Amino acid sequence: MSAYRPLTAASLIDYLASHIPLKERLGGNAADWTAREVSDGNLNTVFIVSGPAGSLCCKQSLPYVRVDPTWAMPLERTLFEARWMQSVSAAVGHQIPALYHLDEGLFLIVMENLDTHHVLRGALIQGTAPAGFGARIGEFVGHAAWATSWRALPFEDVHALRDIFSRNLALTRITVDLVLTDPYRRDCQRNRWISPEMDDPVAELQDDIALHAAVERLQERFLSVDQALLHGDLHTGSVMISGDDVRVIDGEFAVFGPIGFDLGMFIANLVMNAYAQPDHDEWMRDEIALLWSSFQHAYQEREENTDTRGDVGSLRAKKAEGRAGSSPWAAERSRFMHQVMHDLAGFAGLEMIRRTIGFAQIADYDAAGDRPSQIEARRRALATGRRLILKAGRIDTVASLLDHV
Amino acid sequence: MSAYRPLTAASLIDYLASHIPLKERLGGNAADWTAREVSDGNLNTVFIVSGPAGSLCCKQSLPYVRVDPTWAMPLERTLFEARWMQSVSAAVGHQIPALYHLDEGLFLIVMENLDTHHVLRGALIQGTAPAGFGARIGEFVGHAAWATSWRALPFEDVHALRDIFSRNLALTRITVDLVLTDPYRRDCQRNRWISPEMDDPVAELQDDIALHAAVERLQERFLSVDQALLHGDLHTGSVMISGDDVRVIDGEFAVFGPIGFDLGMFIANLVMNAYAQPDHDEWMRDEIALLWSSFQHAYQEREENTDTRGDVGSLRAKKAEGRAGSSPWAAERSRFMHQVMHDLAGFAGLEMIRRTIGFAQIADYDAAGDRPSQIEARRRALATGRRLILKAGRIDTVASLLDHV
Ligand SMILES: Nc1ncnc2c1ncn2[C@@H]1O[C@H](COP(=O)(O)OP(=O)(O)O)[C@@H](O)[C@H]1O
Ligand SMILES: Nc1ncnc2c1ncn2[C@@H]1O[C@H](COP(=O)(O)OP(=O)(O)O)[C@@H](O)[C@H]1O
Repeated sequence: MSAYRPLTAASLIDYLASHIPLKERLGGNAADWTAREVSDGNLNTVFIVSGPAGSLCCKQSLPYVRVDPTWAMPLERTLFEARWMQSVSAAVGHQIPALYHLDEGLFLIVMENLDTHHVLRGALIQGTAPAGFGARIGEFVGHAAWATSWRALPFEDVHALRDIFSRNLALTRITVDLVLTDPYRRDCQRNRWISPEMDDPVAELQDDIALHAAVERLQERFLSVDQALLHGDLHTGSVMISGDDVRVIDGEFAVFGPIGFDLGMFIANLVMNAYAQPDHDEWMRDEIALLWSSFQHAYQEREENTDTRGDVGSLRAKKAEGRAGSSPWAAERSRFMHQVMHDLAGFAGLEMIRRTIGFAQIADYDAAGDRPSQIEARRRALATGRRLILKAGRIDTVASLLDHV
Repeated sequence: MSAYRPLTAASLIDYLASHIPLKERLGGNAADWTAREVSDGNLNTVFIVSGPAGSLCCKQSLPYVRVDPTWAMPLERTLFEARWMQSVSAAVGHQIPALYHLDEGLFLIVMENLDTHHVLRGALIQGTAPAGFGARIGEFVGHAAWATSWRALPFEDVHALRDIFSRNLALTRITVDLVLTDPYRRDCQRNRWISPEMDDPVAELQDDIALHAAVERLQERFLSVDQALLHGDLHTGSVMISGDDVRVIDGEFAVFGPIGFDLGMFIANLVMNAYAQPDHDEWMRDEIALLWSSFQHAYQEREENTDTRGDVGSLRAKKAEGRAGSSPWAAERSRFMHQVMHDLAGFAGLEMIRRTIGFAQIADYDAAGDRPSQIEARRRALATGRRLILKAGRIDTVASLLDHV
C-alpha cells in the first residue's frame, strides 16, 4: 500500500515496474512500456499500459470529480469498485474484467485491459453494436442479483456484505440527489435543458405533485428495499462489448437495493438511444425483450439448480417443487418477477428524466441531428419517463413495458 | 468496563457500591441495600436492587439461554438492548425505562426500576390491565419508527444506524428460525403441541405449500425491507404497565425491518389472550383498533410537524401539501399505511402460529382452563394465523383485520 498521489503516465509505469506480478503481465522492462490515458467517464482517471507480453487497465480515483474539479469527492470510490468486483466475480465469471491488483493507499485498481472492446454507448450511437448484448446483460444482472440475495445466502452473510456497501456514502448520495431528487426541483442549479423549447415540459414535470408522490415511492424503494447487491450505475457507458463478449465495468456505485434498479437504468438508456436515433427502434425493443427473458431465466436457473443456504426460500423442497409450473412456488415466483418489473419500469422512468434534464446527460442526443430532432427525442424521453413512473405499479410484463415506451 | 463474570446478588451490590452515580441513586451504603432476582424472561438475569434513596434494575446477559443452559448465546445481546434504548429514547421519551449505566465488559445494563409496574402479559391474564394501553403502544411504534426511518433522517444516518443493528446476528437468527421458519417444518425438534389432539391441524399446516409460499414472502419482507428500527420482540411480555404509564422493555432483538412486524407481533399476543380467555374478546378488539389509530396518528403527526432532513419525502412542501386531505400525498400516505397493515397482518399470523406450536409458547393458554378449552384456544390461533398469513395482502384496514380474527 502506498501513500496517495495522483499518478501520471510516468509515475504509473514506475509503480507497475516495482510490482513483480504486474511487471510480468506486461513483460520486458519499464522502458518497453507505454501508458496512455483513456478517461472518458465523469469521475476517475484511467490509463492503459502496454508492454511486450500484455497490457493492463489502471483506474485511479481523484479527490474530486474529474469533469468538475470544484466538486470534491472521497477517494475511496475505487475501493468500492474493487469490492464490487470481488463480491460478484464468482457469480458472473468473465462478464466483468479480471481484477489483478488493488492498492488501497493509491486508490488504484489494476485490471484486465479491454481496449479491443468498445464502450456500448458509443457502439450504439455508431450503429456498430452487434445484436444480442441484451441477453448478456440480463444474465449478468440475474446471476449477480441471485448470488448476493437472501435467497442464496444466510442472512448473516448478506448483512456482512450489505454493511460493506452501506458505507459507499458519497456515490449513493450522488444517486439519491441526481437520479431520485434534483430533476423534480424547480430551484436546482444542477439541472439544465434546451431553453426556451423545453421550458414548458420541464415546468410541468416540476409542478406535477402526482409524479412527485410516485417518485417518493421509488426513493423509498431504492433506499429501504435491499434485495441484492446492485451495480448501481448500469448505463450503456458501463458496458464494454466485443462481438458476443459483453463486460460490465465501473461498479463504484455498488450498494444494496431493488433488483429492478439496475435493469431499469440499463433499459432506459436503450430507449433514449432509440429516441435519438429512431431507426434503432426495432432492435431496441428486441434487446429489451431479450434482456428481460434472459434475466428471468438466469435468476430462475440459479434458484432451481443451486443448493442454497438462503433463509428466504428455506421452506422449499427445491428440486421437487420449484419446477412444478402450477405450484404456489410458481405463483410466488411470478409475483416476485412482477415486482421486479414494477421497479424496473419506475427506475427506467427516473433514469430517462435525469439523463434528459439533470446534471449528467448522455451523448446519444447529439446523434439526433438538428435541434428540432434533438428536442423531439428529449421531449419523448421526458414524456415516457413520466408515464413509466406514474404507471410503474401496473406494468407487470415486458410486453406492457414496451407498450409504454 | 469490567471483565465478564455472571453476577450474583452479592457481587452486583459490590459493583454498584464502586460506581458513585449508581451508589448515589440507591443512597446510603452497600450494607443498606437488598438485591433480588426477578428474571422471568427466557434469556437473561435481572436483579432489582433497593436502597434508602431509590432502586435500580440490573440486567445481565448469560453466555447461554437462561431457560436452556445447553443453548449457547453470545453475551453482546445487552449491548444491542442498550443501543436500542439510546437510539429511540429521544423519540419515545418516557415510554422506555431510563438507561443509567452500561458496562460493555460485564454485558450489564443498569436502568430505571419499574417494579411498581406489572408485566402486561400477566396483567392481561389476571384481567387487571387498565384499558387504553393499546394507544400508548401504537404511539410508541409510530414515534420510534418515524424517528429511525428514511423519512426523518438522511440516508447516511440511517445506514450508520442500520449497520449497528445489522450485527445483532444471534438474536436475529432466533427470529428467523423460531418465528419465520421452524413451525412450518415437519422435522423440527423445537416444535411442540398438545398431542394427539392437535396432530392433525399441525400436520395440515406443515403440508400447506400455499401457506409456505406466503411465509416465504414474509421472510423476504422481514429480511430485506428496512423501513425503520424495530423493537423486534414486542409481545405483551415486553411491556410493563402501571395505570396509564406504559413502558416498553427488552429491546435486545432490535434490527431494521418492516414497521408492521412490531405492530403485528403485539396484536397477535392480544388476540391469543382473548382466545384463551374469551370474555376478553371485546376489549381485545377495542385495544387493537385504538393501537392502530394511535400508530397512524403518531406517525403522521411527526411527518407533518417535524422539519425533517429525510431523503424520502424530500420533494414534499411539507407544511403546505402534507395536510391537504385529497392531495397525491394523502393518497401516498394511505398506500403506505395499507402496506404497513399488510405486513402487520402477515407477521401477526406468524406470531400466532409460533407461539402455539413453536419453541417459545405463552402463559396465556394455561389460563384457558381445562384441556379442551386450551386446545380450542390453540386451534383458533392456528386457524387465524394461517388465514392472516394467506390473506395479508388483501387486509388494508383495521376493520378488515378484525373481521379475520
Ligand atoms: N478494463 C478496461 N479496459 C479498457 N478500458 C477501460 C476499462 N475500464 C474502463 N475503461 C475505459 O475508461 C473509461 C472510463 O472508465 P469508467 O470505469 O467508466 O470510469 P468512471 O468511473 O470515471 O466513469 C471507460 O469508458 C473506458 O473507455
Ligand atoms: N426496568 C425494569 N424494572 C423492573 N423490572 C424489570 C425491568 N426490566 C425487566 N424487568 C423484569 O425482568 C423480567 C425479565 O426482563 P426481560 O427484559 O423481559 O428479560 P429477557 O431478555 O430475559 O426476556 C421482566 O419480565 C420483568 O419482570
